[in-house]
Amino acid sequence: MAQAIRIIGIDPGLRRTGWGVIDTDGARLVFVACGSVVSDDGESLGLRLRQLYDGLSEVLAALSPAEAAVEQTFVNPDAAATLKLGQARGIALLVPALLGLPIAEYAPNAVKKTVVGAGHGGKGQIRAMVKCLLPRAAFDSTDAADALAIAITHAHSRGWRALEATVRLAAARAAP
Amino acid sequence: MAQAIRIIGIDPGLRRTGWGVIDTDGARLVFVACGSVVSDDGESLGLRLRQLYDGLSEVLAALSPAEAAVEQTFVNPDAAATLKLGQARGIALLVPALLGLPIAEYAPNAVKKTVVGAGHGGKGQIRAMVKCLLPRAAFDSTDAADALAIAITHAHSRGWRALEATVRLAAARAAP
Repeated sequence: MAQAIRIIGIDPGLRRTGWGVIDTDGARLVFVACGSVVSDDGESLGLRLRQLYDGLSEVLAALSPAEAAVEQTFVNPDAAATLKLGQARGIALLVPALLGLPIAEYAPNAVKKTVVGAGHGGKGQIRAMVKCLLPRAAFDSTDAADALAIAITHAHSRGWRALEATVRLAAARAAP
Repeated sequence: MAQAIRIIGIDPGLRRTGWGVIDTDGARLVFVACGSVVSDDGESLGLRLRQLYDGLSEVLAALSPAEAAVEQTFVNPDAAATLKLGQARGIALLVPALLGLPIAEYAPNAVKKTVVGAGHGGKGQIRAMVKCLLPRAAFDSTDAADALAIAITHAHSRGWRALEATVRLAAARAAP
């Protein structure tokens, strides 16, 4: 693929953080790899965050994505759950930031809307559409599929921005 | 101070993360240094978390504490605030975990109870008592004072555990 951009999507979670890597040239999408980084819930919180950090660092070192997209945490009324997710999310944002990658954030509804076409698609629908958009994708977990959906959302959003810039440039040239 | 243990206390916050380092031999407390790591709220979240990571990493590299104590985040009904704090807290726990330090966590009320003697002391009372317990401490911010209070709480808790172990050993020796 000429001038492909490699994107990593990350779906943060303290127990399981999903990741999915794709290449895109702005129109086509190619599956690269996906998986989950798991933390051991018998360990202390500090060690669990370190496990997520080490796992994500390894993935980024091995696959060298150029941009990252992270799911915006769904802020729910369970404050303790929000705090846990926040801690995992801090690591999911830190690892690409340490490598100098630009990081985009997408709300869960935006991801569903891009991938399924509606803001309230179920997990099963997301998996099915990710499989359809990336036929070579092999994932065995919901969070890896979700991470690929986030990467796809970013690829679409990038494509749209590139198109918008082209249109703006053309309009400026056409102006007297 | 013979057989002193160096402790870093950390009071996490996305905008300002306070830190305070003390030495203790189990009874005496000696002030080493304190300060705040500040993130630039005009930057992206990933960069802000990186600023906290870089700042805390520098402090730990310069002062080489052996143990860390982090304030347990007060889970409040404002989910967005809880999420922000969670992300900062993830970094505050990760940095000492990457260096292999044992990390203790203390609830705000436990810190107030140790330092002020009651679970509901105000910020002013905490500053005054930290100044009293560590006369050489020079802090210009509430979060640095809070971080020292967390380090003091850990020193007391460690001391108590050491004492408890001594008592248990003595009791075992005294048993027939």
